[in-house]
Amino acid sequence: MRTIAVIHGPNLNLLGSRNPDVYGSLTMEQINGKIDCRAKELKISARIRQFNSEGEIIDAIHSSAGCAGMVINPGAYTHYSIAIRDAIEAVQIPAVEVHLSNIHAREQFRSTSVIAPVCKGQISGLGWRGYLLALEYLAAAGDE
Amino acid sequence: MRTIAVIHGPNLNLLGSRNPDVYGSLTMEQINGKIDCRAKELKISARIRQFNSEGEIIDAIHSSAGCAGMVINPGAYTHYSIAIRDAIEAVQIPAVEVHLSNIHAREQFRSTSVIAPVCKGQISGLGWRGYLLALEYLAAAGDE
Amino acid sequence: MRTIAVIHGPNLNLLGSRNPDVYGSLTMEQINGKIDCRAKELKISARIRQFNSEGEIIDAIHSSAGCAGMVINPGAYTHYSIAIRDAIEAVQIPAVEVHLSNIHAREQFRSTSVIAPVCKGQISGLGWRGYLLALEYLAAAGDE
Amino acid sequence: MRTIAVIHGPNLNLLGSRNPDVYGSLTMEQINGKIDCRAKELKISARIRQFNSEGEIIDAIHSSAGCAGMVINPGAYTHYSIAIRDAIEAVQIPAVEVHLSNIHAREQFRSTSVIAPVCKGQISGLGWRGYLLALEYLAAAGDE
Amino acid sequence: MRTIAVIHGPNLNLLGSRNPDVYGSLTMEQINGKIDCRAKELKISARIRQFNSEGEIIDAIHSSAGCAGMVINPGAYTHYSIAIRDAIEAVQIPAVEVHLSNIHAREQFRSTSVIAPVCKGQISGLGWRGYLLALEYLAAAGDE
Amino acid sequence: MRTIAVIHGPNLNLLGSRNPDVYGSLTMEQINGKIDCRAKELKISARIRQFNSEGEIIDAIHSSAGCAGMVINPGAYTHYSIAIRDAIEAVQIPAVEVHLSNIHAREQFRSTSVIAPVCKGQISGLGWRGYLLALEYLAAAGDE
Amino acid sequence: MRTIAVIHGPNLNLLGSRNPDVYGSLTMEQINGKIDCRAKELKISARIRQFNSEGEIIDAIHSSAGCAGMVINPGAYTHYSIAIRDAIEAVQIPAVEVHLSNIHAREQFRSTSVIAPVCKGQISGLGWRGYLLALEYLAAAGDE
Amino acid sequence: MRTIAVIHGPNLNLLGSRNPDVYGSLTMEQINGKIDCRAKELKISARIRQFNSEGEIIDAIHSSAGCAGMVINPGAYTHYSIAIRDAIEAVQIPAVEVHLSNIHAREQFRSTSVIAPVCKGQISGLGWRGYLLALEYLAAAGDE
Amino acid sequence: MRTIAVIHGPNLNLLGSRNPDVYGSLTMEQINGKIDCRAKELKISARIRQFNSEGEIIDAIHSSAGCAGMVINPGAYTHYSIAIRDAIEAVQIPAVEVHLSNIHAREQFRSTSVIAPVCKGQISGLGWRGYLLALEYLAAAGDE
Amino acid sequence: MRTIAVIHGPNLNLLGSRNPDVYGSLTMEQINGKIDCRAKELKISARIRQFNSEGEIIDAIHSSAGCAGMVINPGAYTHYSIAIRDAIEAVQIPAVEVHLSNIHAREQFRSTSVIAPVCKGQISGLGWRGYLLALEYLAAAGDE
Amino acid sequence: MRTIAVIHGPNLNLLGSRNPDVYGSLTMEQINGKIDCRAKELKISARIRQFNSEGEIIDAIHSSAGCAGMVINPGAYTHYSIAIRDAIEAVQIPAVEVHLSNIHAREQFRSTSVIAPVCKGQISGLGWRGYLLALEYLAAAGDE
Amino acid sequence: MRTIAVIHGPNLNLLGSRNPDVYGSLTMEQINGKIDCRAKELKISARIRQFNSEGEIIDAIHSSAGCAGMVINPGAYTHYSIAIRDAIEAVQIPAVEVHLSNIHAREQFRSTSVIAPVCKGQISGLGWRGYLLALEYLAAAGDE
Repeated sequence: MRTIAVIHGPNLNLLGSRNPDVYGSLTMEQINGKIDCRAKELKISARIRQFNSEGEIIDAIHSSAGCAGMVINPGAYTHYSIAIRDAIEAVQIPAVEVHLSNIHAREQFRSTSVIAPVCKGQISGLGWRGYLLALEYLAAAGDE
Repeated sequence: MRTIAVIHGPNLNLLGSRNPDVYGSLTMEQINGKIDCRAKELKISARIRQFNSEGEIIDAIHSSAGCAGMVINPGAYTHYSIAIRDAIEAVQIPAVEVHLSNIHAREQFRSTSVIAPVCKGQISGLGWRGYLLALEYLAAAGDE
Repeated sequence: MRTIAVIHGPNLNLLGSRNPDVYGSLTMEQINGKIDCRAKELKISARIRQFNSEGEIIDAIHSSAGCAGMVINPGAYTHYSIAIRDAIEAVQIPAVEVHLSNIHAREQFRSTSVIAPVCKGQISGLGWRGYLLALEYLAAAGDE
Repeated sequence: MRTIAVIHGPNLNLLGSRNPDVYGSLTMEQINGKIDCRAKELKISARIRQFNSEGEIIDAIHSSAGCAGMVINPGAYTHYSIAIRDAIEAVQIPAVEVHLSNIHAREQFRSTSVIAPVCKGQISGLGWRGYLLALEYLAAAGDE
Repeated sequence: MRTIAVIHGPNLNLLGSRNPDVYGSLTMEQINGKIDCRAKELKISARIRQFNSEGEIIDAIHSSAGCAGMVINPGAYTHYSIAIRDAIEAVQIPAVEVHLSNIHAREQFRSTSVIAPVCKGQISGLGWRGYLLALEYLAAAGDE
Repeated sequence: MRTIAVIHGPNLNLLGSRNPDVYGSLTMEQINGKIDCRAKELKISARIRQFNSEGEIIDAIHSSAGCAGMVINPGAYTHYSIAIRDAIEAVQIPAVEVHLSNIHAREQFRSTSVIAPVCKGQISGLGWRGYLLALEYLAAAGDE
Repeated sequence: MRTIAVIHGPNLNLLGSRNPDVYGSLTMEQINGKIDCRAKELKISARIRQFNSEGEIIDAIHSSAGCAGMVINPGAYTHYSIAIRDAIEAVQIPAVEVHLSNIHAREQFRSTSVIAPVCKGQISGLGWRGYLLALEYLAAAGDE
Repeated sequence: MRTIAVIHGPNLNLLGSRNPDVYGSLTMEQINGKIDCRAKELKISARIRQFNSEGEIIDAIHSSAGCAGMVINPGAYTHYSIAIRDAIEAVQIPAVEVHLSNIHAREQFRSTSVIAPVCKGQISGLGWRGYLLALEYLAAAGDE
Repeated sequence: MRTIAVIHGPNLNLLGSRNPDVYGSLTMEQINGKIDCRAKELKISARIRQFNSEGEIIDAIHSSAGCAGMVINPGAYTHYSIAIRDAIEAVQIPAVEVHLSNIHAREQFRSTSVIAPVCKGQISGLGWRGYLLALEYLAAAGDE
Repeated sequence: MRTIAVIHGPNLNLLGSRNPDVYGSLTMEQINGKIDCRAKELKISARIRQFNSEGEIIDAIHSSAGCAGMVINPGAYTHYSIAIRDAIEAVQIPAVEVHLSNIHAREQFRSTSVIAPVCKGQISGLGWRGYLLALEYLAAAGDE
Repeated sequence: MRTIAVIHGPNLNLLGSRNPDVYGSLTMEQINGKIDCRAKELKISARIRQFNSEGEIIDAIHSSAGCAGMVINPGAYTHYSIAIRDAIEAVQIPAVEVHLSNIHAREQFRSTSVIAPVCKGQISGLGWRGYLLALEYLAAAGDE
Repeated sequence: MRTIAVIHGPNLNLLGSRNPDVYGSLTMEQINGKIDCRAKELKISARIRQFNSEGEIIDAIHSSAGCAGMVINPGAYTHYSIAIRDAIEAVQIPAVEVHLSNIHAREQFRSTSVIAPVCKGQISGLGWRGYLLALEYLAAAGDE
């Protein structure tokens, strides 16, 4: 069974209580439950982790080198962590960047992703469903 | 049965022959076939149209006012058509912006969308599957 | 009797329903009624048209070459249509640019008009009354 | 009878002799005569003043707090006086910014107004008639 | 006999009357006559069309896919129509961008072409002769 | 007894009525009462003045040359008055810049102070308490 | 007794030896002593911590969610850590940003804080006294 | 005898004590003495005034309309007072802008003059001698 | 017989060996042969020179003052040599700027020409044929 | 024997497998072997460490305070970690910044180093040899 | 007798014929005559040279190391020749930059001098008299 | 024996006397002596030249086409000479750019090199030792 790494970035552990108008009312655990559930339907395994530290995210990406793909929500690091960008590029597995909120409809600085250029693609603004769609894409694309 | 408007922007009628490395090898008709197919599975109706003219795209958006949602690939207009942006904002139905290629990994000017801020969200870089994922999102979100 | 061309740009056909806080609650037809009414008072004829297409607006400007003046609300094209700018400059009749909303109090990109430099002047933020004031100016200035 | 404050900014006391191609050949006194005349027709009272000093303009705005509206031509202060902007915002009466010349057709730095965002709207390029149109707007809008 | 598509962009139908100091005193018909004449000398066929609408220009480019080359004066669209750029890139025939006036000697915004990067080259400032030189280039280059 | 100059800039005379959400509900007189009160506790004398005119603020700074320190809220002049900056630098007494509102959380142009570089420091966003804290700092630092 | 979290960012553990002209000659321990001392006077408890790692600062902010307020000197992270900004915004307790040196009087890049917009306010340039003033503000504001 | 207006801008009344390394050790009165002296040699009359207020400088410029020329050191207003610029342009007498210090060798913002474009020329960095050279120029140029 | 000056800028002496994909495989001598040949057909004389030094190019332009026109490929100087620009403007003969490669399709800095604004026009991207077309233009335009 | 600290930044643990065209085919261990070898020749000791975390790099720099010098390849942190910059400045030992690849020949954002201004110098693009050259410099400069 | 070096930059050999509205109608020889004449009055010797080549100007500056001062009109090199700037800084004699025309009243790119920061000062817009005033300044300042 | 070209750019002939704090106290001849010495150790020949003229540097680069490598210190030309950049790219031998001072720690404009992108790498800030390290690199890399 193929494994897809799912990596949540900084502050996502506060989901549910943090600004529900922007990020939705589900907790990270509830979203993870939905991810696991969809993974089962897709007959893949999801390895889900959350980190506040940039360095730990880089480590986690390195340790995903053998996975069939990666779903990553880099949170605020999206906008400046070239180190995370380089890590994704280095491991050479297909990655999809996911954002719960529509980063193009918020502060100007949130509309730029330094990470997207090394990913397969980006899904933003579709809430927790974005994670499921990314999983679905990676599962399907991997089948070809 | 709810209808989702699917609007392809300029030059997408050339899909298949145009730069297959970037846009994939399927023709627009083949992609439309897949969209119709997925729509059936989702028990919705997809109203698919393609236009090269900005004005006709605006008309098409206006005429989608009664739909349950809209999937729009504005093509090159993504980067400057504030008129299309205003049209989407005016009709007040949930819209998802889709791009076949990863617009964040190409020329600098392609990474800015003047349209995304008025959409629910954006999917880019996931090829023709992006359309299906957008449909799926709109169908599911509409069910809540 | 002198004729003044009145040209409404993209999305103005949706007036009344679109974002009434910004654009007011009158429909385009109601505004046109007020324009016709004021034109009569001023003893001029108003030739009123609306287009969503940039190309049709250019055609309409060309066909206004014989008019005594032009009132134009270029809508979103205000911010990028150098083609409309060139058309106005080419026909060489006095033009007044009108905006219902105060374009200087909204998103940054709306505060720039590529069209204003070739017009006689600009009126923004005064709602539908802006059209009547523009008519009045053109009628009076033409009398000198 | 309602009062409308009319405030002329710096250098407007030189009207008539200063650069007539840009600003017209009427003196400030002649323009004030026309303003008074139109005010009478509109059955309002115009309180007209001119200042070269930014501080005095701020004082004048504060002292207009009880007026039904304000017509202000901030002259060169348009482009940098955030202090005048704040004064207008603070007094909370409807204001219309007026410019004799088309500020969008001159040096680049003249096309930006730091004041317009707190006004109801802006009229530029319509010469001394701009003042009359602004008065007319404030009188009519106040009648609603 | 090989065919070269010649496409005139917006407002070029007004040539002769529009700003003769900048664009010359020949009408579009007179220039077309000279193009036809030179085409005959070069033993090629010129298919000449003019459009004000961006969408129609895109259609015209698509319909030129079988031609031996294209001469295009995109007019004001030069500066922002990424959609026209994409159309030219998609049809993959050699294109030469032509401008009557020297776009590098006018307003700052006219010196940038979003279209030139996908053309073979650009000729600007050489008046109607620019069209003939472009034809000549395409005819000669096609002979190699 | 040492004297600290306290200078309020433009529009601060309107405190209490102006935008209470941003600037608080106390009037300038009430704030001045609190400043006097704290000055007594600190055994210093506060010389408090308010001006709308940039020139008068410069004069007031010059006349503070003999004071032990200065607390200055330059209001909107914060963002462009290099003349006030030069005046503060010239008198060479320690100055603290105070803002009632958080200037870093408002319009972009308010986050830049041309005056802060010549002050000892800046306190912003802490309401009327900011004045008291600045007094306290100057009193304590002067004791060393 | 209410608790105020005090968080020192990167390199502040070197205080005293690092660039004393800019940062003062007290060590971090000496400053912490003064903070504790003032906290006692204010009848609050100060929970003081220092971290070089961005991730640990985020963790520390999360763990301060129950505090009555937060005093944070984000050090160099001030200028780019949107992740710390998001953490502060998420915990929703009043925070004051403190800088020992006057960040507006140093290199250009130090004058921008990405964190200040989500804080109550900012104190910079007042040395170690800035911490005490911030404590005092939070204690007093919390009493209202 | 022809009169040359000499206008000193803000903070120049502090000359001698203010930053002597940058501005020299002469007081304004001493410099004025040298100006008067040179004026006598040149057989012209110098009308010397100093103002801290932008508005008073504008008034002074207006009142210089009959002079044979103007020497102006706008001090910090050099960098933003478009109102002073407009005043100089309006009075239409030859003006020379003078700076004691080399404004091109200091902070970046001091190297731009919004006033120089409407003057005959600019002398900077030559200390108090700059005033004498400007006088000399105006006297000589007026003799032609 | 009229003479046209042809000036090749820096590094063009290496043509043929330098980056043939960009600049073509002909040597400068071969191109000069084609220029001479076409000049004969056009019954004009071509005075062809190449220089690596900016100063020598300026001298060469000065010495072309009596020519009927100039064809100049300023090479890399195109992007920064205002001195060459001024030389061309000073000699007042019609000049055409030629580039072998399409400067608009390469590094961003190559798309700006500081020289084009003082030329009649610019031809870029048409290889060595660009020189012939420029000659042809100058010969024809000179005949009028 | 003097010690030189050698610090590898994020993702350098992947050397050898990551993008060998850019970074070379040696693993980090192999490079470290060469560093040790050269250190022995230079009669110094190299203390080599690698970290993905910004915070750990700061700690490592602090702990290098007693070393004779530092060789640091900050990887992607080069471009934004002002915190690492401040750490290097604080420890006050000579540091040389090393990059395997030529950072000036890649994406635009890689050509800026926020760290270089506090280092002695920078070596980029010379592959693993850059480390040896940096060691050699520090050893030789330390001998003076 | 002290010597002052006078260096004219590129294209100044064309004075008199080149654009007399901007640069005046005197030839360089006539201006040099006036310079010599004034030098005699000032009892100094002027060593006057003109060069079109940047390298020769650098050589000339180096060879002026023993002079009492330098008057330099760097012509177009003013705006980009950092090499000339470095040469002036290196020879460490007082230099005055002179421009015939008012460089602040022409194209935007002419208002920036990369050379002025290393000169004593700058005189622009005062025609050939600017050279005499610069000589006079250097003679007088050298007498102190 | 392989030859390495060593090219010193403008003003480097003044080394030793020019700003020793920045550039060191050795003369160019002394540095050349050290280069020759190291070259002998490395069993290569160094061909050392210095030029102030951009054109002569280009000639020198062309004449180095047969060398095994090039060490170039382009001095101030580093920041704008695209012509030198093109020359280096054209000769296709490995080049190393060397700067005596740390160009990243000086004026902002010195931190950009237009030449580095076409070199193998860059060494800056390591004084005259930088030349030796560059030689060493080229000798070693050439041995592989």
